Amino acid sequence: MDRSSGSVRIEVRVELKPGVLDAEGENVEKSLGLLGIVGVRHVTTARIYDLEFVDATPAEARRRAEEAADRLLANPVIHRVTIRSRSG
Amino acid sequence: MDRSSGSVRIEVRVELKPGVLDAEGENVEKSLGLLGIVGVRHVTTARIYDLEFVDATPAEARRRAEEAADRLLANPVIHRVTIRSRSG
Repeated sequence: MDRSSGSVRIEVRVELKPGVLDAEGENVEKSLGLLGIVGVRHVTTARIYDLEFVDATPAEARRRAEEAADRLLANPVIHRVTIRSRSG
Repeated sequence: MDRSSGSVRIEVRVELKPGVLDAEGENVEKSLGLLGIVGVRHVTTARIYDLEFVDATPAEARRRAEEAADRLLANPVIHRVTIRSRSG
């Protein structure tokens, strides 16, 4: 287990499940039309949390990021979560 | 110019510039500590806007997404914007 190579960055992407109203996306869609930016059929939004871990292996960092998503960052009723490692 | 192949998806990522306070990131960082999820040195957040264009070439869609970022989605004083094409 290599804990000496600095930090591990994990990106947690939280977006609404299909079928759940994305109010911000709809507002953006409408506003783009008002601004004359045409051809936009659909807008969806997502929130990114970029977590930087120290003293953790990539596997440990990933597990903690999953726990963070479960317990704090996302609501499983309405959200879909994607977790990926980032270099750096 | 190929306009017949359906839609073009462009992802606009809006995040705070380094040095600008990321209040949501700081709150997450603090909350993770309170939950006992340890080893998190830093949390930053970003907003993703996934724009689906129709009747546009990839180059046109990208140009419109840049205009959307400039005029609506981001504030150049505090935000850094990254635009990339998505398959689909």
